[in-house]
Amino acid sequence: MKWDELQQQQCAISRFLSVFGDRWTLLIMSDVFLGVRRFETFQSRLGISRTTLTQRLADLCEHGVLKRVAYQEKPTRHEYRLTAKGLDLYPVIMGMTRWGNKHYPAEGGPPILFEHTACKHEFKPELSCSECGERVPAWEVRAHRRPDHPDLPPVLRGPIDEKESP
Amino acid sequence: MKWDELQQQQCAISRFLSVFGDRWTLLIMSDVFLGVRRFETFQSRLGISRTTLTQRLADLCEHGVLKRVAYQEKPTRHEYRLTAKGLDLYPVIMGMTRWGNKHYPAEGGPPILFEHTACKHEFKPELSCSECGERVPAWEVRAHRRPDHPDLPPVLRGPIDEKESP
Repeated sequence: MKWDELQQQQCAISRFLSVFGDRWTLLIMSDVFLGVRRFETFQSRLGISRTTLTQRLADLCEHGVLKRVAYQEKPTRHEYRLTAKGLDLYPVIMGMTRWGNKHYPAEGGPPILFEHTACKHEFKPELSCSECGERVPAWEVRAHRRPDHPDLPPVLRGPIDEKESP
Repeated sequence: MKWDELQQQQCAISRFLSVFGDRWTLLIMSDVFLGVRRFETFQSRLGISRTTLTQRLADLCEHGVLKRVAYQEKPTRHEYRLTAKGLDLYPVIMGMTRWGNKHYPAEGGPPILFEHTACKHEFKPELSCSECGERVPAWEVRAHRRPDHPDLPPVLRGPIDEKESP
């Protein structure tokens, strides 16, 4: 399978990776969620080449994840802002951050802390159910093939069963 | 910055990407969460070359995300199972799936449906707060630099403020 065919695939993960499959792209988006907006700031924070950064920002705009907005006239200067589609990436970025902090802890603790402004506490992102609102551990998820979908076995096992959980 | 230096960086996202920065790796992990365990199944589902698949599975075992377990003797056959560290990837995979399904919907709807076995409903993953348990939309998150961390500005803006939200 060629990478440019990914967007045609049924798999949602493939479609995600057709936009965010490049590592720089996810680092750029991570910086956007920390408030970075300008080319020079991305460039100095990430140590990415100007050519690569220009291309990745153009790709993200083309995919409708970022938008390029003029913030100054004479001379015109642009910055990059999240669209609604980009904003929807936020649970993924938070999940990656939590995984990195847990399994490769930085000396002295995580460099960035997240506050939930509604309850005023420093918090960790949890996964919860859209229907009942409760936290959903991995072993409470069962994946089913959509009945009319031909390319998958009809019953997929839940992602984790107890025998296999570590 | 070289990619093999990423694991040394402070940024949690960089550390995440030092393990999962390859697109095949995330597709393999996605299949693992759907119950795929065996080399031949990965190979036929993903259309990945045997050489690349062998290398990626070895990398994932070396990082402690998967473990290689014998499931049969004479001849010995192995399969790949999640470790606790791998299981922790699950909110990220669910988040990617949701993003892909929302923004690049497959014809006829998502091919795979997720059931929350505790409440018996088909559900979508939501992000919630570890402290108060409520759902956390992106605009209720504020990022702060850890006070003793020298490499970042002392106050980061929240990832989204209203003026900038789309």
